[in-house]
Amino acid sequence: MGRARHILAGIGDDCAVLQLPPRHEALITTDFSLEGIHFRRDWHPPEVVGHRCLTRGLSDIAAMGGEPIAAFLSLALPRKFRQSWVDRFLRGLLQLANDFGVTLAGGDTAESRDGILADIVVLGSVPKSKAILRSGARPGDHVYVSGQLGGSAATIELLLHSPSKKLHPTAFSRHFYPIPRIKLGRILREKGFASAMIDLSDGLSTDLAHICDESGVGAEIRSEAIPRATMGKPPREVELRFALHGGEDYELLFTVPRTRRIPETISGVPITLIGEITKRKGVILIDENSVGRDLLPEGWEHFRV
Amino acid sequence: MGRARHILAGIGDDCAVLQLPPRHEALITTDFSLEGIHFRRDWHPPEVVGHRCLTRGLSDIAAMGGEPIAAFLSLALPRKFRQSWVDRFLRGLLQLANDFGVTLAGGDTAESRDGILADIVVLGSVPKSKAILRSGARPGDHVYVSGQLGGSAATIELLLHSPSKKLHPTAFSRHFYPIPRIKLGRILREKGFASAMIDLSDGLSTDLAHICDESGVGAEIRSEAIPRATMGKPPREVELRFALHGGEDYELLFTVPRTRRIPETISGVPITLIGEITKRKGVILIDENSVGRDLLPEGWEHFRV
Repeated sequence: MGRARHILAGIGDDCAVLQLPPRHEALITTDFSLEGIHFRRDWHPPEVVGHRCLTRGLSDIAAMGGEPIAAFLSLALPRKFRQSWVDRFLRGLLQLANDFGVTLAGGDTAESRDGILADIVVLGSVPKSKAILRSGARPGDHVYVSGQLGGSAATIELLLHSPSKKLHPTAFSRHFYPIPRIKLGRILREKGFASAMIDLSDGLSTDLAHICDESGVGAEIRSEAIPRATMGKPPREVELRFALHGGEDYELLFTVPRTRRIPETISGVPITLIGEITKRKGVILIDENSVGRDLLPEGWEHFRV
Repeated sequence: MGRARHILAGIGDDCAVLQLPPRHEALITTDFSLEGIHFRRDWHPPEVVGHRCLTRGLSDIAAMGGEPIAAFLSLALPRKFRQSWVDRFLRGLLQLANDFGVTLAGGDTAESRDGILADIVVLGSVPKSKAILRSGARPGDHVYVSGQLGGSAATIELLLHSPSKKLHPTAFSRHFYPIPRIKLGRILREKGFASAMIDLSDGLSTDLAHICDESGVGAEIRSEAIPRATMGKPPREVELRFALHGGEDYELLFTVPRTRRIPETISGVPITLIGEITKRKGVILIDENSVGRDLLPEGWEHFRV
C-alpha cells in the first residue's frame, strides 16, 4: 500500500501534481454524494457518509481492473454547519482511503444553499491497454458476479419502514460499509480472466444492460443462480427483486470467455456463475421453471425522500 | 489543439482511460459552480454558466504552466428541469472546451434537491518537474500580473444595483466570458520566467497571500501600479478595492527573479510589474504618497444572495 510517492504536490496549490507509474494509463471517475439523494443524515452517521462517498469512486477504479492513487473531494456545506459532522465525515473517508493507500490530494470547498453536497474524484492507474472495459463481452462468455447482491437495497427498505429510522451500521455493513473490490478487480485483470466488467452500483438489471449495450450483445441469466445477500436473525435471503434491481452493492459483474475456468473464490470473495452472453440483444431472466422473460433495466434511483 | 488522442475511453465506462504525453506529470483540479453561490440564473445566461464553470478549472491548469487534456462534469439538477437550459449550459462549456482542445470525458449526473449544482474536474499535464508551484517565490523576486484586475467584481456590483439585473454579457466579458490564460502560463513555464504562480480567482489580496504563505515570504505592491479594468461609456477605471479584493478575473499572478527581464506583453496579454517579494512576512500596499499599510486578504466570497 501507500502510493503517496506518486503525489508530487497536493492540497495547497492550484492543481495537484501527480506522477503515474511507468507504462500506466490514468483512470478518472467522479461521483456525487448529495444529502437527501444519496444519503440521509437521520439514517447515515457521518463516518458512513464519508466511507460510502469514497467507495463510489474506488469501486469504479476496481471495475476497470485498476489501482487507486489519489482522491479529490469537493464539499459544500450549509453556512453554519457543525464542524464535528465534517470531522467525522472525513474520518470515515480517510479511514477507507488509508485502507487502500489512497491520498486525499485536493478538492474544493463552498457554501451550500441546502444540505451537504459532496463530489468525489478518484485518480487511479492501470498498465497500458489493460483496462477492462464494458465493451469486451462476446457471445458465449460466461457472466459472473462477486459476493452477494441486494443487501444494500434491502437495508434501505428496512430503513424506510423502521419507525426509529436507526439501524446499527456494523450489523448491516453491506449498506453502510461496502468494500470496493479493488483487489478482486486487479486479479481479474492480471490473470486476463475478464473480457468485460462493471461495478454493481445501479443494480444488476441496469448494469448488465450497460455491458450488453456497450458490447453489442445480450445475456441470459438464471434467477436461481443469483447469489442473494442474507440479513436478519435468523439470517434470511433478501427478496429476488433487491438482488435484481437494488443498487449500491459495489460488487463486480464481469464476463469470462467460456473456455476459461475461474476459482470459486478470489481473494476471499465468492465468485458465482449466473448466466451467459448471447448474440441476441436484450437480457433474459430464466426462472426456476426454465421460463424466460425480458429483464428490463429498472434504473436504481437511490431512495425518494 | 486537439489532445483527444490522449482519451482512450471516455463517457460510457466506469472510468475514463487517459494517456499522458511522454515524460509528463498529471495535473488535477476540481471546482464547484453552485447556483446562488457562484452564479444566479437571473444574472447569468446558461451559456455563461457553462463557460465560467470550465474557466475555473482551466485557469488552475494555466496557473501551473500546464496544458489541459480532459474535463469531467458532475451535474445535479432539480427533478423537473428544462432541458433547454442544460443544452445551452453545455453549449457554453463545450465551446470553451473546443477552443482549448479539451475533451469532455466523463462525469456524473444526479437529482438535486435545490438548484443547479455543477462540479468541474480538469485533467492536464506538464513536463516532469516543470509545474510552477505557489511555493517558489524568493525575496527580491518581482511580482507581476497579467491583464487588468477588478472587472469581474465591479460587474457584480453593477448587477447588485441594477434594477433589471440584466447586463449584456458581451459588453462585460471580463465577468461573463473570462478567458483562462493557458497560453500565457505555458510560455512563462517554457521560458523559465516564473518562480511562483497562482491564478486570480479569489482576488489579488488573497491570492498574493497564498503565494507568500506557501513560499514563506512577504511582498510589497504599489497601488498605482495595479492595472485596473475599465468599464462603461466613456470607459472608466474600476475602483481600487475591486482590483485589490475582487475575485474571478482569472488573470495570472506570478513572481520572476529580479535579474530576468520579461516582455511587456506575452501572447497579446499585457504584463505589469506591481511590486516585489520581501523577506519580511506579510503583504504591504504602498499608496501614491509612498505610505505603506498592511494589505489583509479579504477573502472573496462571490456574492451573497
